[in-house]
Amino acid sequence: MIKVGIIGSTGYAGQELVRLLLPRKDVEIVWYGSHSYVGQNYSDVYGNMFRIVDAKCLDDDLDALADEVDLIFTATPQGYLAGVLTEEILSKTKVIDLSADFRLKNVETYQEWYKIEHKSPQFLKEAVYGLCEVNRDSINDKVRLIANPGCYTTTSILSLYPLVKQGMLDLSSIIIDAKSGTSGAGRGAKLPNLFCEVNESIKPYGVTTHRHTPEIEEQLGYAVYSIVEGEAAYSNNSVSKKFEEEGQPGGYPITINFTPHLVPMNRGILATCYASLMPGYKASDVAEAFHMEYDKEYFIRFKGQGVFPETRWVEGSNFMDIGFTVDERTGRVIVVGAIDNVVKGAAGQAVQNMNLLFGLEENEGLTMPPLFP
Amino acid sequence: MIKVGIIGSTGYAGQELVRLLLPRKDVEIVWYGSHSYVGQNYSDVYGNMFRIVDAKCLDDDLDALADEVDLIFTATPQGYLAGVLTEEILSKTKVIDLSADFRLKNVETYQEWYKIEHKSPQFLKEAVYGLCEVNRDSINDKVRLIANPGCYTTTSILSLYPLVKQGMLDLSSIIIDAKSGTSGAGRGAKLPNLFCEVNESIKPYGVTTHRHTPEIEEQLGYAVYSIVEGEAAYSNNSVSKKFEEEGQPGGYPITINFTPHLVPMNRGILATCYASLMPGYKASDVAEAFHMEYDKEYFIRFKGQGVFPETRWVEGSNFMDIGFTVDERTGRVIVVGAIDNVVKGAAGQAVQNMNLLFGLEENEGLTMPPLFP
Amino acid sequence: MIKVGIIGSTGYAGQELVRLLLPRKDVEIVWYGSHSYVGQNYSDVYGNMFRIVDAKCLDDDLDALADEVDLIFTATPQGYLAGVLTEEILSKTKVIDLSADFRLKNVETYQEWYKIEHKSPQFLKEAVYGLCEVNRDSINDKVRLIANPGCYTTTSILSLYPLVKQGMLDLSSIIIDAKSGTSGAGRGAKLPNLFCEVNESIKPYGVTTHRHTPEIEEQLGYAVYSIVEGEAAYSNNSVSKKFEEEGQPGGYPITINFTPHLVPMNRGILATCYASLMPGYKASDVAEAFHMEYDKEYFIRFKGQGVFPETRWVEGSNFMDIGFTVDERTGRVIVVGAIDNVVKGAAGQAVQNMNLLFGLEENEGLTMPPLFP
Amino acid sequence: MIKVGIIGSTGYAGQELVRLLLPRKDVEIVWYGSHSYVGQNYSDVYGNMFRIVDAKCLDDDLDALADEVDLIFTATPQGYLAGVLTEEILSKTKVIDLSADFRLKNVETYQEWYKIEHKSPQFLKEAVYGLCEVNRDSINDKVRLIANPGCYTTTSILSLYPLVKQGMLDLSSIIIDAKSGTSGAGRGAKLPNLFCEVNESIKPYGVTTHRHTPEIEEQLGYAVYSIVEGEAAYSNNSVSKKFEEEGQPGGYPITINFTPHLVPMNRGILATCYASLMPGYKASDVAEAFHMEYDKEYFIRFKGQGVFPETRWVEGSNFMDIGFTVDERTGRVIVVGAIDNVVKGAAGQAVQNMNLLFGLEENEGLTMPPLFP
Repeated sequence: MIKVGIIGSTGYAGQELVRLLLPRKDVEIVWYGSHSYVGQNYSDVYGNMFRIVDAKCLDDDLDALADEVDLIFTATPQGYLAGVLTEEILSKTKVIDLSADFRLKNVETYQEWYKIEHKSPQFLKEAVYGLCEVNRDSINDKVRLIANPGCYTTTSILSLYPLVKQGMLDLSSIIIDAKSGTSGAGRGAKLPNLFCEVNESIKPYGVTTHRHTPEIEEQLGYAVYSIVEGEAAYSNNSVSKKFEEEGQPGGYPITINFTPHLVPMNRGILATCYASLMPGYKASDVAEAFHMEYDKEYFIRFKGQGVFPETRWVEGSNFMDIGFTVDERTGRVIVVGAIDNVVKGAAGQAVQNMNLLFGLEENEGLTMPPLFP
Repeated sequence: MIKVGIIGSTGYAGQELVRLLLPRKDVEIVWYGSHSYVGQNYSDVYGNMFRIVDAKCLDDDLDALADEVDLIFTATPQGYLAGVLTEEILSKTKVIDLSADFRLKNVETYQEWYKIEHKSPQFLKEAVYGLCEVNRDSINDKVRLIANPGCYTTTSILSLYPLVKQGMLDLSSIIIDAKSGTSGAGRGAKLPNLFCEVNESIKPYGVTTHRHTPEIEEQLGYAVYSIVEGEAAYSNNSVSKKFEEEGQPGGYPITINFTPHLVPMNRGILATCYASLMPGYKASDVAEAFHMEYDKEYFIRFKGQGVFPETRWVEGSNFMDIGFTVDERTGRVIVVGAIDNVVKGAAGQAVQNMNLLFGLEENEGLTMPPLFP
Repeated sequence: MIKVGIIGSTGYAGQELVRLLLPRKDVEIVWYGSHSYVGQNYSDVYGNMFRIVDAKCLDDDLDALADEVDLIFTATPQGYLAGVLTEEILSKTKVIDLSADFRLKNVETYQEWYKIEHKSPQFLKEAVYGLCEVNRDSINDKVRLIANPGCYTTTSILSLYPLVKQGMLDLSSIIIDAKSGTSGAGRGAKLPNLFCEVNESIKPYGVTTHRHTPEIEEQLGYAVYSIVEGEAAYSNNSVSKKFEEEGQPGGYPITINFTPHLVPMNRGILATCYASLMPGYKASDVAEAFHMEYDKEYFIRFKGQGVFPETRWVEGSNFMDIGFTVDERTGRVIVVGAIDNVVKGAAGQAVQNMNLLFGLEENEGLTMPPLFP
Repeated sequence: MIKVGIIGSTGYAGQELVRLLLPRKDVEIVWYGSHSYVGQNYSDVYGNMFRIVDAKCLDDDLDALADEVDLIFTATPQGYLAGVLTEEILSKTKVIDLSADFRLKNVETYQEWYKIEHKSPQFLKEAVYGLCEVNRDSINDKVRLIANPGCYTTTSILSLYPLVKQGMLDLSSIIIDAKSGTSGAGRGAKLPNLFCEVNESIKPYGVTTHRHTPEIEEQLGYAVYSIVEGEAAYSNNSVSKKFEEEGQPGGYPITINFTPHLVPMNRGILATCYASLMPGYKASDVAEAFHMEYDKEYFIRFKGQGVFPETRWVEGSNFMDIGFTVDERTGRVIVVGAIDNVVKGAAGQAVQNMNLLFGLEENEGLTMPPLFP
């Protein structure tokens, strides 16, 4: 039995962790952490859990929790975990962090994009970026700290990773136009997220400044390196280690444009990715790169050329759908990826990481088909 | 291993059966029936099933299917099953019918409300009305034919059943104002169900003429009888047998007003039920009746007085939430019930019946928490 | 040129007033009041007004405003206007109040349902309840203070008024089940009104306790009186005066059940009204009552028997659609009414009152067809 | 009084024409054409028009109509107008075509992208592309045939026109990622447009193949030319004439990527446009280009740098909002434009053209503020 605690269990991602972990017989949630709802019944905060969760919300006490559990999920605002994490905690328990605190290897990059000081850079080197499909061989029972990827980043990186890794893309030409459901904005009571403000509208936000940008750039940069060095078999994590050893944490990230948009729906992210193909590559090469990289992946469903994903087909599941086409007129490849931002983009991916950390089947508890309609 | 076939697997309810049955290790779907999509890949019709279902749609051939499976689900238009069902089929396999063909014991009532001739009234007597919470003791491995209740009816009957059974309601005063998500309208390509026609609007329909009306009336009528006869412990099915023996199939249904409304959301039914309390009863009596009837029920979550259900809290699950209040000013009790129309109102309830038919735990495969948001 | 000021111009109803008044050549908005956004550009608060409104939000100063304008609209929280209104203000300008402060003639009823002390009951007698269709003959240039009806109340009263007035209904049997878009909840940043909380759900709220209940009861009560006294031609306002003179402000309201529900859409209210017909009345009588009362009304579109309104057909307009049927099985009439809650339920009705106060055509500036889809 | 007929008045764009024209005192709609609803009351097809339009739908008879009216709007499927248009018709009346039949000057391009034969290429030369902001000086009372621009094209062209015209963009780098509400898909009863299929999802479609692509390319191509020739003052129409005279109808269009997406909302189009800035240009130059081109435009609301449009702020209106930023990291400019696809993208633009054709104020009947929420 894996005992887990969830810090930030009353956010949308935290609640989704609860939904995914409750049915499991090998996992027990012993701590429903919530700074905002301490002392309240969890099922009063989330009515769907009525008669299912019989627990009260506890305060966010990482030290106390470390003594009680095998694993802590932190689904907390940026800066929280970095502010409280200690060696002692990590010596007692594992941590999967759904925030951005340990995703970027370069602390300056973090501070520049997040505008907050990083309080525990000493753990950056140890943290493994938990995108299982590219770092699986680095995620095992020896790992103490997982930086769970962001929702936009998961969609964006996995959409382009095979092509970058194979050197098929003009790296200066990458543009990612992403669209997200509103759960990505969190459960805070903010005017722009009111029903009447979001409904019947679409808007861009964080144009050129969204914080997921450097995360995408860093990870795609690692993929480039593995090709440059003729080491395509290396995981991104291995590459990041090399850079760290060379005193260049974060590597040489490539530079992209990333534009997120808010869509009037609850769940789902769609990333429409544009890039110029390097000379000589054609659609069949692109298809082959995807097949080679993803055919063995349980959660990635490559749909081939000319068939595109729609977020409705992945809702409630940990699947990612990918399709592409090549425009002969412009020489560009257009790859479209779709996930459920709350599952593969947050809680599902965290569970996927948990499974690897504890030596379980990677898809344990994550095989439910998407819910439609 | 229970082998099942689904006739009408490409409707919304049929697809939900697929979603619920696929993860089960004790059930195998061997026949994806679909009149409209014969020969097509099931996953081309429902993209969520890509890489999950590797099967083509087969024609609706009940006879062929009966030889192959232990159980047939018919998620078909009204009249289909009554038109093809035979003794031979029932001698080989069990059938759970999600249509209305065998829900009403009185064939005249069926023909009056559905405006179609009933082609096999000979099976009406045998069919068990599959509302497990009121007919559980009649649903077992000897039963060959289950009439799975309608979505509005499930919500309405379960909302009022304990109070009718205890004689607390003025039976002439019952009004049920119900609201449904649009999946209840089916997947047919009809103009009134287009996004732009449904979105940003609410409308009533079938006012005084909706076909679920007599089904609610018949079942509530049975509940009345059990009180009249001092036999509250009787299931509705037992009562229906008595009436059949007396040559009065359908019993003496009470008369209600039932008004459904279409709501711009995918899933969910909310029934707001009004009735005058009989003299002497008060809120605590109402609460007690609900507790007595439902505290032991896994799928019914009684929220007590002054706390009301919302459809978001049951989405994707087989739960039903119920709350009530008593208005001292008018002497009325207002009971509100909510379900996911596609699960507890259709496919989930069908699986619940399947579990009972095959001697399994009633909630097997149905314990997933609701999905939110 | 009518100079107007709007206190509370940054709420949804206030903004709708701006939308309706801006195109008019006979009206000038000189004061965009907003407690929350003082000093900000109005078009920064409402982006739709960019390049249309070139004004900053001013504080809520009723005294200063009274010197400048011919008419003040107060689209403010309950209690605001009652707390600041003075004889001096009313001696200088007219006020149309979109809050509930002067809708109920009986101050005790107000305090009981609104749980706040009424600070200026001395103006209750003078205030005219601005439901033009029933009080038109009392709304003219001599009136200083209009209590603009609530959104649910407008829909409910107008749906039943002709039948109550004609004595066709069993007054103890009235049940109004209403459904509203989310704009009715206002623009406050509250968790229950977030997109993800409202979307894909329907819920009841304020069951038996919603504040619009006594307003409906009082006005329908006046309609009863006019029949009792054989004075059907009397307006509700005239009846209310009689009661005041007799020391019984508010009259003898009838008692109803009123249940509002929140629907995932921006605009629109639908009221489904149930009542038992008095003996001898039939559908044709009901139709005749509606024709008699409403055929001359510009804003009320009576659709007849068996044809029901849908909120999409009135969106953005000041129209109210009404349909009905009689259920011979239960003896009840079911009347359904629909309006746009922000227009006919708030700002549009306020403009309708303004037109009458200033001797203009009642539909001036309100003839735009509904917007669809 | 301008007498107009509308062929295709029961589509969404046709109905919007009705909504916009009805309030006008200088226009009379004398023909509600509808192939599908001949003989039916227009208000039975569109309930919002109940008691407003008292007319029956007439057949699509262009010849008969030409005798009766001053202007015909054709809101019809591609190929219809080209199939029936004659010199005789144009000698009697003006035509504003909302279909694509006369938008592309090069008949081969039309036939390649639309996969239908063009039946009356002889009128291509005469037709004026009715994007008033770029062709205003060619739209006057001498014009007989207007090709009203598409919704995506209007948004895309106007977003980039000033920058292309000033030579600021690397023309090989243009990518337009567009998002549209569902009304753009029309009112046909098709499964993919059902509420449950569209709701809670976003999807790309027509990737690299959407028919609006060549229209955008052609018009942006004309803008390029005017710079090349040092004739920035030329309208696109003038440039197109030059090319026609040189035997190269359609000019030398540039090549872009255009990707439309379907969004779960009724109205609105947002175009996110990416392009590399030519060396030496910076954000202030971009801003100046927009100001120079659009400050005088009534319907274009340029929001400046770093402020982006949202479709909710233009709903129901003929306005277009534009914002931009320059990403110093990648050297790209990102321009975002938003319109209401049914108004500025169809019916509103058609009315704008009508106003110019008849010598009226260009914004006559189009000054209503956007409707929110």
